[in-house]
Amino acid sequence: MKIWKTEPHWLIRIDKGEEIITSLEKFAKDESIKAGSIRGIGGVGPVTLAFYDIKKMDYKTKIFKGEYELLSLSGNVSILNQKPHIHLHAILGDEKFQTFGGHVVKMTVALTAEIIAIPDTYQMDRIINKELGLNLWGGCKICEV
Amino acid sequence: MKIWKTEPHWLIRIDKGEEIITSLEKFAKDESIKAGSIRGIGGVGPVTLAFYDIKKMDYKTKIFKGEYELLSLSGNVSILNQKPHIHLHAILGDEKFQTFGGHVVKMTVALTAEIIAIPDTYQMDRIINKELGLNLWGGCKICEV
Amino acid sequence: MKIWKTEPHWLIRIDKGEEIITSLEKFAKDESIKAGSIRGIGGVGPVTLAFYDIKKMDYKTKIFKGEYELLSLSGNVSILNQKPHIHLHAILGDEKFQTFGGHVVKMTVALTAEIIAIPDTYQMDRIINKELGLNLWGGCKICEV
Repeated sequence: MKIWKTEPHWLIRIDKGEEIITSLEKFAKDESIKAGSIRGIGGVGPVTLAFYDIKKMDYKTKIFKGEYELLSLSGNVSILNQKPHIHLHAILGDEKFQTFGGHVVKMTVALTAEIIAIPDTYQMDRIINKELGLNLWGGCKICEV
Repeated sequence: MKIWKTEPHWLIRIDKGEEIITSLEKFAKDESIKAGSIRGIGGVGPVTLAFYDIKKMDYKTKIFKGEYELLSLSGNVSILNQKPHIHLHAILGDEKFQTFGGHVVKMTVALTAEIIAIPDTYQMDRIINKELGLNLWGGCKICEV
Repeated sequence: MKIWKTEPHWLIRIDKGEEIITSLEKFAKDESIKAGSIRGIGGVGPVTLAFYDIKKMDYKTKIFKGEYELLSLSGNVSILNQKPHIHLHAILGDEKFQTFGGHVVKMTVALTAEIIAIPDTYQMDRIINKELGLNLWGGCKICEV
């Protein structure tokens, strides 16, 4: 992973064999980013995607082996349990140009990932919503005390 | 809906049962936003999508019942007939990780929607293009008078 | 193509019959943009998409005739061989709301394209990675000399 702090974007290249969620969590921790946007394109695989089943209040996951075009990676940085949390959804494309996608659990870079991040001057804390079983955006607990 | 005006993003959480287009139109009206970008991820449904048929010069619509991962929501704010207009395209994912998408007519939140907006210091008016039957970006009529 | 330089976005409308990669290369050259983000939505076709086959170290391409909703266009501007290089991935939707996508080789506008660009104060040079056969983000060669 290599980071260029330009203005207004931070440009991040994640390299072959590196895992994107782990890499971006490290990036957010190292740079003390507590809110912000992330998006990107690239070539990735294998990838573990998830779908949230509201009835079961749990994620169903699937591992996609092979290599794919990363057609869209979109999401945000927030804070969950005092640590940076990377929430990303992805759409992948295969050699027949078919697409599929989901919530990103794990995504290893096959070729490269070109990530564009913009940090916010804020701390977005996630708070558990017990009805849904999900940690939702809850504002800044520290700021609002 | 809850809005956090951070810098440079405005972070917007749209809640279960709320409709995204209506919510964002209210947001743009309340905050006097007349141009800007919108994107987001979440869990949504039911959703009404549209495809513009250029030959018929009309939209074909379809209602998708059930619940979906909102894999990509992307678009912009502009002004149409003196009112904020929210133009969004979406890609949804189902429990089999299959994807589909279109122009967003109506999208109800099933879990949460995490929206990232950046307002512009401009008023982007839409003007009818009679050849296409669509209201296209036309610049700022007030500014240029 | 018409460009509005608002703050912080540059709003770009690409018109019926215009090709998006060529248009944005001209835009980047004219405005001396050497890094930055690009995204957009619209109605497009015909479109030539590509998938990179790492084993063959070459792109497989396919031409999609007809007209599609441009559901997601996402990527960046960089410098390759001293010239602006536009790297975009796209997801398209058809009249049945089915989606497909890939690396954008050529994309002609059918209705309109509403592009949102943010230039960076940087020059991101691409450098060949011989192992992959691809030109990857390599930082600014001029800046770092």
